[in-house]
Amino acid sequence: MTRIRQRVVIENVKPEIDGGRFPVKRTVGQTVRVEADIHTDGHDLIAAFLMFRESDTETWSETQMIALGNDRWAGAFRTASVGRTFYTLQAWVARFLSWQRNFSKKLEAGQEISVDLQVGALLAEEAAKRARGVDRRKLLAFARSLRPGEARGVPECVTAALDEVLGALADRYPDRSLATGYGRELPVVVDRETARFSTWYELFPRSCSKEPGRHGTFNDVAKCLPYVASMGFDVLYLPPIHPIGRTNRKGRNNAAVALPEDVGSPWAIGAAEGGHKAVHPQLGTVEQFEDLVRSVRDHGIEIAIDIAFQCAPDHPYVMEHPEWFRMRPDGTVQYAENPPKKYEDILPFDFDTPRWRELWEEMKSVVLFWAVRGVRIFRVDNPHTKPFAFWEWLIAEIKQEHPDAIFLAEAFTRPKVMYRLAKAGFTQSYTYFAWRNTKPEIEAYFRDLTQTEIREYFRPNLWPNTPDILTEQLQYGGRPAFMARLVLAATLGASYGIYGPAFELCEHTAIAPGKEEYLDSEKYEIRTWDTDRPDSLREFIALVNRIRRESPPLQADDNLRFHTVENDQLIAYSKSTEDRSDIILVVVNLDPRHTQSGWVELPLEEFGLDSAVPFQGHDLLSGARFLWQGRRFYVELDPFAVPAHIIRLRRRVRTEKDFDYFM
Amino acid sequence: MTRIRQRVVIENVKPEIDGGRFPVKRTVGQTVRVEADIHTDGHDLIAAFLMFRESDTETWSETQMIALGNDRWAGAFRTASVGRTFYTLQAWVARFLSWQRNFSKKLEAGQEISVDLQVGALLAEEAAKRARGVDRRKLLAFARSLRPGEARGVPECVTAALDEVLGALADRYPDRSLATGYGRELPVVVDRETARFSTWYELFPRSCSKEPGRHGTFNDVAKCLPYVASMGFDVLYLPPIHPIGRTNRKGRNNAAVALPEDVGSPWAIGAAEGGHKAVHPQLGTVEQFEDLVRSVRDHGIEIAIDIAFQCAPDHPYVMEHPEWFRMRPDGTVQYAENPPKKYEDILPFDFDTPRWRELWEEMKSVVLFWAVRGVRIFRVDNPHTKPFAFWEWLIAEIKQEHPDAIFLAEAFTRPKVMYRLAKAGFTQSYTYFAWRNTKPEIEAYFRDLTQTEIREYFRPNLWPNTPDILTEQLQYGGRPAFMARLVLAATLGASYGIYGPAFELCEHTAIAPGKEEYLDSEKYEIRTWDTDRPDSLREFIALVNRIRRESPPLQADDNLRFHTVENDQLIAYSKSTEDRSDIILVVVNLDPRHTQSGWVELPLEEFGLDSAVPFQGHDLLSGARFLWQGRRFYVELDPFAVPAHIIRLRRRVRTEKDFDYFM
Repeated sequence: MTRIRQRVVIENVKPEIDGGRFPVKRTVGQTVRVEADIHTDGHDLIAAFLMFRESDTETWSETQMIALGNDRWAGAFRTASVGRTFYTLQAWVARFLSWQRNFSKKLEAGQEISVDLQVGALLAEEAAKRARGVDRRKLLAFARSLRPGEARGVPECVTAALDEVLGALADRYPDRSLATGYGRELPVVVDRETARFSTWYELFPRSCSKEPGRHGTFNDVAKCLPYVASMGFDVLYLPPIHPIGRTNRKGRNNAAVALPEDVGSPWAIGAAEGGHKAVHPQLGTVEQFEDLVRSVRDHGIEIAIDIAFQCAPDHPYVMEHPEWFRMRPDGTVQYAENPPKKYEDILPFDFDTPRWRELWEEMKSVVLFWAVRGVRIFRVDNPHTKPFAFWEWLIAEIKQEHPDAIFLAEAFTRPKVMYRLAKAGFTQSYTYFAWRNTKPEIEAYFRDLTQTEIREYFRPNLWPNTPDILTEQLQYGGRPAFMARLVLAATLGASYGIYGPAFELCEHTAIAPGKEEYLDSEKYEIRTWDTDRPDSLREFIALVNRIRRESPPLQADDNLRFHTVENDQLIAYSKSTEDRSDIILVVVNLDPRHTQSGWVELPLEEFGLDSAVPFQGHDLLSGARFLWQGRRFYVELDPFAVPAHIIRLRRRVRTEKDFDYFM
Repeated sequence: MTRIRQRVVIENVKPEIDGGRFPVKRTVGQTVRVEADIHTDGHDLIAAFLMFRESDTETWSETQMIALGNDRWAGAFRTASVGRTFYTLQAWVARFLSWQRNFSKKLEAGQEISVDLQVGALLAEEAAKRARGVDRRKLLAFARSLRPGEARGVPECVTAALDEVLGALADRYPDRSLATGYGRELPVVVDRETARFSTWYELFPRSCSKEPGRHGTFNDVAKCLPYVASMGFDVLYLPPIHPIGRTNRKGRNNAAVALPEDVGSPWAIGAAEGGHKAVHPQLGTVEQFEDLVRSVRDHGIEIAIDIAFQCAPDHPYVMEHPEWFRMRPDGTVQYAENPPKKYEDILPFDFDTPRWRELWEEMKSVVLFWAVRGVRIFRVDNPHTKPFAFWEWLIAEIKQEHPDAIFLAEAFTRPKVMYRLAKAGFTQSYTYFAWRNTKPEIEAYFRDLTQTEIREYFRPNLWPNTPDILTEQLQYGGRPAFMARLVLAATLGASYGIYGPAFELCEHTAIAPGKEEYLDSEKYEIRTWDTDRPDSLREFIALVNRIRRESPPLQADDNLRFHTVENDQLIAYSKSTEDRSDIILVVVNLDPRHTQSGWVELPLEEFGLDSAVPFQGHDLLSGARFLWQGRRFYVELDPFAVPAHIIRLRRRVRTEKDFDYFM
């Protein structure tokens, strides 16, 4: 019969992921807004508090919740620092406020209230007994002021009794044994800002040499940094930098047999020169990599490396730890397969191995090895083929030592698996964005990601292309498709990335019709790119990324709202800051072949705009400024010019009242 | 690191009320259909089982779940007996089935499979080691059949390997240490059928004498039983039968001062003659009440009494246990109030009293007192003014001794409070039905009750009138409104009730305009009713109740579906059995003044009907039969005849193919 006397009920708390089993995610300074159903029997009023603390303290801060109606309550707190924060709720019957409410109703009805005054005084005295210091003295004085006496008539007592501040103070000192605690401490993972807002550029270091045929080095990558920085990227992601296996190496265009000069896939990790803690000799040394990490930082960029937990057949692990692999009855190691497909150049770890503890610890040591060398962002290859529990453990362990670590999950699998990986701890996640091209597809998918509980733990990172994915939209849509997809990625998502220079050079030839593999893919050979080509999208990308940096609304995901346009080839949406002081409206022509026009409908009330007053639109892509009035406005987008508007709405338009004759 | 090696994930289990904190409700023989997201890393197949057990056994039964797509799984079990049942889930990687799937893909691709056969044999042998008896022998033989040998060539082994039954058998014996248990045992309260399907009639015993002015007795109630039974009711609910307080007794029409001959409100419980365990002397004795309980049962009816935990000022508790009440500083006991309203004839218990344990135990003893005397149905007055925890405890305690007990919550308060009372254990609940009169109101409210999670724990009991509620619809709608509201209550709800004879005699005069109180309410005086009046709805009610008894679809709530009618005064809905073998379609004219007509649209596919084939409709109210074809059909309802159709749809219409020339 413990906790049986608490009359207040707290239920249906949001956000709460799987009963508190998993944390919600925020970045430092972001708000956690908590709602709950809080109610009690009878007619009594309630006091409800949202409590929160960082994991390294036992002391709770608290903030009063407010009633939204229908027994729903809300409160909010701001996250303060990277790490884990917890929140919970507490509520109790507000005996004094209930008394005050009844008291004033009786007054209004002209009822006799002298006994009620005595009740109020007793309640204030009880509260005073539980209070300390100033509050105690205030409450004792309050109680006295409710008792008519020599110096006080009943009218003075009545006035005193209705004091709302003192009433609320009395209810801050309830009989805590009757207060309802929610009973669960709900976790928040608080990350640094890059976790929420990041702009990624992927390139193959070996293609950076600029001299056709010469294998690029870390030094060559360093020379590319001004180029990457000029486009406004802040994360530079490198595919695996380790020695590449020779056994069963794949040739150009994924040929089953490699020629002697073929360089192989960087994801076939490990050879005589070493494995996951070594560097491919043709790229440089571990020390040179550390130099690169510093150079990258000097350009305002951060490096991200690839974590691909799999081995080439000649990876040292295979000899040293055969027990980490699944052996076939014929004595060979089981290679990766998804029948009838075989990946003979790649051996998966057997996570069911009885020696799993050693395997897990070794994987952790790999990540720590690179963390010690200054890497804090890890793009994780195919996490969905390793157990969820492994990731939950690994990410927690790494964050224990490096709370600023960021993990991007590269899983393109079933939705629930992707969401579970995010719950397990991945900071960001690849999405289906590449395959969402039509307006209904985009709207439905991004409503799921940004308007449901998913947004609490799944941070999308949108990639219009990757070395594995050259979508049909890009293959056939030409430069307009590249521009439209770039704007969509950069404005639908607070985090997005491109694989370049293939992207900005509009590389669009697939290996075969109906395939999404690049012809002459960099996964299997060195490419030389002419990044100075006049048709490069470099300037356009730089502009879009500058707009992102200068527009706080574009640095969040959960503020996305779609708007009606009477044309299925035009998609319109907006993002705004919480206070609506900054509103960005985006319109994109999804048709890469024809000019499309239509009327966009704007929810002016939501924007805090008045349909009777003109407002200004500033197209940040073209620089053009417009004056508008009313709910609907006309757009026309030519894909061969710029297939999108990114418009900042300004509430205030200057009028004659702003004109100062004498200035 | 316990439970860390289980690769399968089970999440988002439905139904599950507040993480298993509260049970779902079923009646004996009803199905519990459970869904969950179940998935694992990689490409492996899964085996998933729904497990269930009754509370008095430790042994789990299990039933295999099936995949619905998108990693959603479903299973179902049937409840067997009154009491508590628990369910949980277990799932694991189906290693053998995964192997079989890969094996057949390799076969199709013409790949070499001899090593794979060895892998399969090893897997079957491992499963055999974990099996016992026949299964073990089968699995060992299965393993042998996969190894080519003297008597077996590879082709025979391949055929053997694809055996799906043996494959599934192998996966029934997984390494259980790698199996994922859901970790929670989710409760089901299984009630007897009356909890789900019941037809209530409320009457005031003191009005049963038939002689104007004479106080009715239990004996008089017994004489009314043939009348109640003839209308097809199966629960007879009596307002409180206890001695009525004299102090501050209310007079006729709630007059503040009673005349000496006034009988008072039965809810002002307790006087010199006794309290909650006594019987009002003018009704009879406890023994006579027990006789009545038996007579009621002999008529196929069950008695329900009123549990109103409150006291008249002269209740013996007030003298014997002043500590159970809240004392005011002037030494008086606090009466019930909702300022500025005062209920001076009623003293609420103070559930915050330090002597709460004694109070709770006494309340329990009251319910047990009547349970021992044969009562199993309790209509609980104003449960929302007592703590939720009290009800949760009380109902659990009573059900411990009387698992067939039924509690109806009379709370007309905020929605979340009503739902929480249902979660706390109330078997059935009053609803807002009385105030849901228009089509949008009815549709929205009943979608909430029957199509959301609420349906798992909240069983609505619909009352078109009560002694407290004479709705404006009934005040002004005349006989057509009474008929329409009866049909709505009886067909929207598997449980419903009326307060009679006021209802069947269409009593419709309120105490004042804008009030919902009856004029000359039986709450404060004895009434004499002429139940033989020719304009009584008695026959109509009997017909509707017979239709309910003969129509299984009308005995459930969660099968309700609304249908489109192009007329806002016509509402159409259907209920059907799970197998669609019995479909009831209801159309009601909500306008008590005018004939209304319109086209009803039927979802023929959902009904398993073919739009190319005629089907039969049988109006169970009028007896008329129709042939229809297609999705839309025309209805016209005259409120002054019968304002509703209750139509049984028959899939099969006889054609010439059914005609036997030689019979």
